[in-house]
Amino acid sequence: MSNPSLVLNKVDDISYENYESPKIDASNEVIVEVKKTGICGSDIHYYAHGKIGEFVLTKPMVLGHESAGVVVQVGDSVKSLKVGDKVAIEPGIPSRYSDAYKSGHYNLCPHMCFAATPNSKEGEPNPPGTLCKYYKSQEDFLFKLPDHVSLELGAMVEPLTVGVHAARLANLKFGEHVVVFGAGPVGLLTAAVARKFGAASVTVVDIFDNKLQMAKDIGAATHTFNSKSSKPFHEALPSGHQPDVVLECTGAEVCIQQGVLALKPSGRFVQVGNAGSNVLFPITEFATKELTLFGSFRYGYGDYSTSVSILDDNYKDGKENALIDFEALITHRFKWDDAIKAYDTVRAGSGAVKCIIDGPE
Amino acid sequence: MSNPSLVLNKVDDISYENYESPKIDASNEVIVEVKKTGICGSDIHYYAHGKIGEFVLTKPMVLGHESAGVVVQVGDSVKSLKVGDKVAIEPGIPSRYSDAYKSGHYNLCPHMCFAATPNSKEGEPNPPGTLCKYYKSQEDFLFKLPDHVSLELGAMVEPLTVGVHAARLANLKFGEHVVVFGAGPVGLLTAAVARKFGAASVTVVDIFDNKLQMAKDIGAATHTFNSKSSKPFHEALPSGHQPDVVLECTGAEVCIQQGVLALKPSGRFVQVGNAGSNVLFPITEFATKELTLFGSFRYGYGDYSTSVSILDDNYKDGKENALIDFEALITHRFKWDDAIKAYDTVRAGSGAVKCIIDGPE
Amino acid sequence: MSNPSLVLNKVDDISYENYESPKIDASNEVIVEVKKTGICGSDIHYYAHGKIGEFVLTKPMVLGHESAGVVVQVGDSVKSLKVGDKVAIEPGIPSRYSDAYKSGHYNLCPHMCFAATPNSKEGEPNPPGTLCKYYKSQEDFLFKLPDHVSLELGAMVEPLTVGVHAARLANLKFGEHVVVFGAGPVGLLTAAVARKFGAASVTVVDIFDNKLQMAKDIGAATHTFNSKSSKPFHEALPSGHQPDVVLECTGAEVCIQQGVLALKPSGRFVQVGNAGSNVLFPITEFATKELTLFGSFRYGYGDYSTSVSILDDNYKDGKENALIDFEALITHRFKWDDAIKAYDTVRAGSGAVKCIIDGPE
Amino acid sequence: MSNPSLVLNKVDDISYENYESPKIDASNEVIVEVKKTGICGSDIHYYAHGKIGEFVLTKPMVLGHESAGVVVQVGDSVKSLKVGDKVAIEPGIPSRYSDAYKSGHYNLCPHMCFAATPNSKEGEPNPPGTLCKYYKSQEDFLFKLPDHVSLELGAMVEPLTVGVHAARLANLKFGEHVVVFGAGPVGLLTAAVARKFGAASVTVVDIFDNKLQMAKDIGAATHTFNSKSSKPFHEALPSGHQPDVVLECTGAEVCIQQGVLALKPSGRFVQVGNAGSNVLFPITEFATKELTLFGSFRYGYGDYSTSVSILDDNYKDGKENALIDFEALITHRFKWDDAIKAYDTVRAGSGAVKCIIDGPE
Repeated sequence: MSNPSLVLNKVDDISYENYESPKIDASNEVIVEVKKTGICGSDIHYYAHGKIGEFVLTKPMVLGHESAGVVVQVGDSVKSLKVGDKVAIEPGIPSRYSDAYKSGHYNLCPHMCFAATPNSKEGEPNPPGTLCKYYKSQEDFLFKLPDHVSLELGAMVEPLTVGVHAARLANLKFGEHVVVFGAGPVGLLTAAVARKFGAASVTVVDIFDNKLQMAKDIGAATHTFNSKSSKPFHEALPSGHQPDVVLECTGAEVCIQQGVLALKPSGRFVQVGNAGSNVLFPITEFATKELTLFGSFRYGYGDYSTSVSILDDNYKDGKENALIDFEALITHRFKWDDAIKAYDTVRAGSGAVKCIIDGPE
Repeated sequence: MSNPSLVLNKVDDISYENYESPKIDASNEVIVEVKKTGICGSDIHYYAHGKIGEFVLTKPMVLGHESAGVVVQVGDSVKSLKVGDKVAIEPGIPSRYSDAYKSGHYNLCPHMCFAATPNSKEGEPNPPGTLCKYYKSQEDFLFKLPDHVSLELGAMVEPLTVGVHAARLANLKFGEHVVVFGAGPVGLLTAAVARKFGAASVTVVDIFDNKLQMAKDIGAATHTFNSKSSKPFHEALPSGHQPDVVLECTGAEVCIQQGVLALKPSGRFVQVGNAGSNVLFPITEFATKELTLFGSFRYGYGDYSTSVSILDDNYKDGKENALIDFEALITHRFKWDDAIKAYDTVRAGSGAVKCIIDGPE
Repeated sequence: MSNPSLVLNKVDDISYENYESPKIDASNEVIVEVKKTGICGSDIHYYAHGKIGEFVLTKPMVLGHESAGVVVQVGDSVKSLKVGDKVAIEPGIPSRYSDAYKSGHYNLCPHMCFAATPNSKEGEPNPPGTLCKYYKSQEDFLFKLPDHVSLELGAMVEPLTVGVHAARLANLKFGEHVVVFGAGPVGLLTAAVARKFGAASVTVVDIFDNKLQMAKDIGAATHTFNSKSSKPFHEALPSGHQPDVVLECTGAEVCIQQGVLALKPSGRFVQVGNAGSNVLFPITEFATKELTLFGSFRYGYGDYSTSVSILDDNYKDGKENALIDFEALITHRFKWDDAIKAYDTVRAGSGAVKCIIDGPE
Repeated sequence: MSNPSLVLNKVDDISYENYESPKIDASNEVIVEVKKTGICGSDIHYYAHGKIGEFVLTKPMVLGHESAGVVVQVGDSVKSLKVGDKVAIEPGIPSRYSDAYKSGHYNLCPHMCFAATPNSKEGEPNPPGTLCKYYKSQEDFLFKLPDHVSLELGAMVEPLTVGVHAARLANLKFGEHVVVFGAGPVGLLTAAVARKFGAASVTVVDIFDNKLQMAKDIGAATHTFNSKSSKPFHEALPSGHQPDVVLECTGAEVCIQQGVLALKPSGRFVQVGNAGSNVLFPITEFATKELTLFGSFRYGYGDYSTSVSILDDNYKDGKENALIDFEALITHRFKWDDAIKAYDTVRAGSGAVKCIIDGPE
């Protein structure tokens, strides 16, 4: 069977290719027909620069890692899924034999095979991306979507789970005051997680008023703050509450500093955003207040299922009663045949929040 | 009754004064005759500069906060102590009504009254230091020393407890590999705590070979590393083990960076040392490995009693069977009448590790 | 000023008395005019039996410990409250000097002074209850109610906080499956807490269908199970999910057993209900599944404020949009002059869930 | 190659058999020549009764699961071990695909393949025991022994790790007071773990004075208590300290009760011993003191390596300086040809603590 795929050949060069469809080799494997895929900033980065840090594109690679689809074939031992089920795809499969996996931290597995993240070792293929018709995964890395959660929402489970992981690392609890730095897709989704977890307030900080407006409009922020404002930050906080938790989704030095200064004594800070390089860090203030800083990398055990629970709960009484309007984040939609145009649109910085590409017919 | 006291009047000006002895006002109060007091770097800093950060000396202050002594009077409700008991003095008494105290984190109490830490508010006195004959404290901030633990060792409980607090924050466990940056008094004592807690290895890092030698000699380090060496750090680590825990006791930027880079994924980092200012922090590496950073400030509930347990356990089978030779840290001893000379000696940087001053006769 | 009070003199003997009003002695004290008070099962027990366990009524005692009111006077140092504020009263004040308090577990303080819990030591008074006009407390044991939370709801904060404490001990997280045994006031409120904390399902178990109906009607239960039913328990669980958390609010042996058997491996069990005596406990099953059992006693640091957050959040968009209908739990209301009748009504077992008595005019 | 094996055919029937040697099929597999094997109570139970709970012997099974040996062959991907290495064998290999394994709790894996634990499903073989010449395992379930730790000690790593798991569940910390119920092999080893973890006191409780004497003699107990004594338990506790932690290794109802009553408020209780049936549990006392009960089942991630660290540390300065005399627990030793006699000796209850059988020549 043929498997149409969207392939990044090298910088500035995306093409459609027809590969052989994957086949089930092991009894826990599942083949998914991909229906909806979101574009992530990292995809664009590879498209424009051919690398992110140590990950360098040295051969063609199928793009895509934010996908949902429908099960079309299951291995013999698969029990929790059946043909026809709607699923969100967790795109990274670790080694089952690594120490990280065994200890319950599979996101730290050094042998992770993560969709559309290049493997530059000679003789080794790139992990296949999800922007194709048929994608092979394993039973426990696929998550069934409830009837009332659309495939389009399913494609947002991946970035949503980045926020879930951060909030769970922080052990964010009902009634706490939270600040989220950044109102890009990850920041907005992280703020939405904080709201769903019962935060008493979620203050979203960014430098663009339109992004802050969206944070409010979709129900992710209870308060916002434009950090270019001349107003002191603490005045933006509800009732002057020092936050219990900061979720930093920008990687910007100034945000990291502001987060540390804002936190109350014993507060928790989670670094989600990629800073790129070293930052000037107010470690004396940090130590004197006995803060805790958690590094957050992708997501791990229990995170994907929590994301599905969030969507399930959010939409169980209908869209009109949803706390968070996740769908409003999808600002652009493209057919499969327009996928390259989708990449170019996002790359051009046209104000897209989340852009979704349909699977091949 | 007269209370001879050592008073820092202003920069470069220490004198002996005779104050009125404290009296018991509340039923939980206890008066201790101070017998041994260590000199801390902060004492020297006030002597030389008159301030540390926001703490500014604006009026005369009795020095000293690392002391042990003998109980001479107890309030009516005191049950755990009696006249004649040897005690280590915990020098900071928080407000019993603060939120920090109520939540079990009294070291973060904003109303802390800490011996020999200046209070520059007009009309309010400085918290009394312990370099006097009679010092008044409260029952639960005094810790009875076992018979086989000397008063001199009792005077080292304060800095030892800084290390205990850090190790407990890190939840340092038997069998873990630990790196301690800094071989000053706090670094050495923190390393000693790690050893007593059962660390499989304790690698002490400093730039002075003689300090590293002492770390080995007293039994606090199993391995050492001179960071001026051209050898890569990981070669100093036992069997190439990436550390589980870093206890940073210098505040030096380069050490903080090296600690983050050295830690294994999911490792824990405790900042004990005072950095003074912002440091360039490798936050991307930190996040990618999902490290945890704990700020450590002084000590709190259960820490002093753990320190006493450490000394109790260390010396229970005699000095010759002690794992750690804490006494070797005491490089200088002075009589009460030579206390100013003691301060000048330490200030002159004469290689003193810990200098102990006897109480007044 | 006169202070009308409702006094339990001995078994079967309640009377109205006029005592002297309390006066502010310390700067953190606050006097509250009590407006609404709930009747608790323990009140009825003292009325009918004169004792609960080791707590024996040996002299007259003012009743009541579930109250809300309005601040009428504040001590000099009080900052967070002012005259006219609506407050919920936390009825137990521990010793500020106990080890339990210092360690952050004040509910375990052996010197707790808890409203309307008799002190049978000769020469020592009973802790005053809240069924009076003027009740003296301390700043940090009073919790300001938001404008949109009524005093009547404020009187329910006390039993609600029992549920909050249990859920926080269990570290109950968004998306988890929870079983609550018991649909009395504490069970219903505990189930409501689980819902507000984001439980994916809350299955309430009882032997009375009308109580189970109420659990559903007020929004506390997503599923119910009548344990007298012949249906197996696991069939009542949503999608066959073994629960992550059991909150046991009955103390009944059969419920405790059923909870242990139902839990999934690594599950958490919180014992809230008072069993009265030893129970046959399936400890082999418990150990084989590596469950964790937490004993829960009253409530502690952060619990009351979380309860107020729950009510705040629940009613912030109006009663019609509230997730939980807490007010439906109030099945009976009495004027102050009918307070004895209120006690007799509840004692008679007339199906009251929560009965509220107005304060004296 | 021939693989001599000791086989339990049915109750009362053990024989020597010659099976085919295992072969390496997967690249992470390792073949160990078994040198030393301890007899466990469960082995004797199968020998005498043919079953333990749901585990029923329905076909011949190779005995043994407490073994150490020498690596004789390694798969292609094995890096941490080489031919000739001394190793302790972790005898249970879970499914790499189970939810329990993925979450970091592999001991709870329902598909665990545990040496010498019968699988009564028709058509499925019993998991092979370790009482044979050549035993096949996997790289990460073998733990290299330091040079100064003998193979005989290596055979005790398995029961030692039961104690390690319990102590780690309790988060047993330096300086805590611990009570261990039971002075059989597991109780003694658990007490030894508590000592190595730095417990301030370890009180071992049993009904046999000779076992209590052994607990003291090997250095595992600092205090002992014969529970048949008429002396109250609390008098046996050092300085009247209520324990912080109870490690229950008997499963006896009376011990479980006594442990709950003895613990201090907020104390932790770990159930290690198999109670066999329901026990009368003092749940009111448990709840009122807010104790925590952890069920403990076998061992999991990090436990085996901690056991090896314990032996490494214990013997690093020579046997004469060892804190614990683990070897004294080995009261009986048998050659391979006398293995059946070994089983009969232990079964006869001849006072053996730990009996070790040599591997086949």
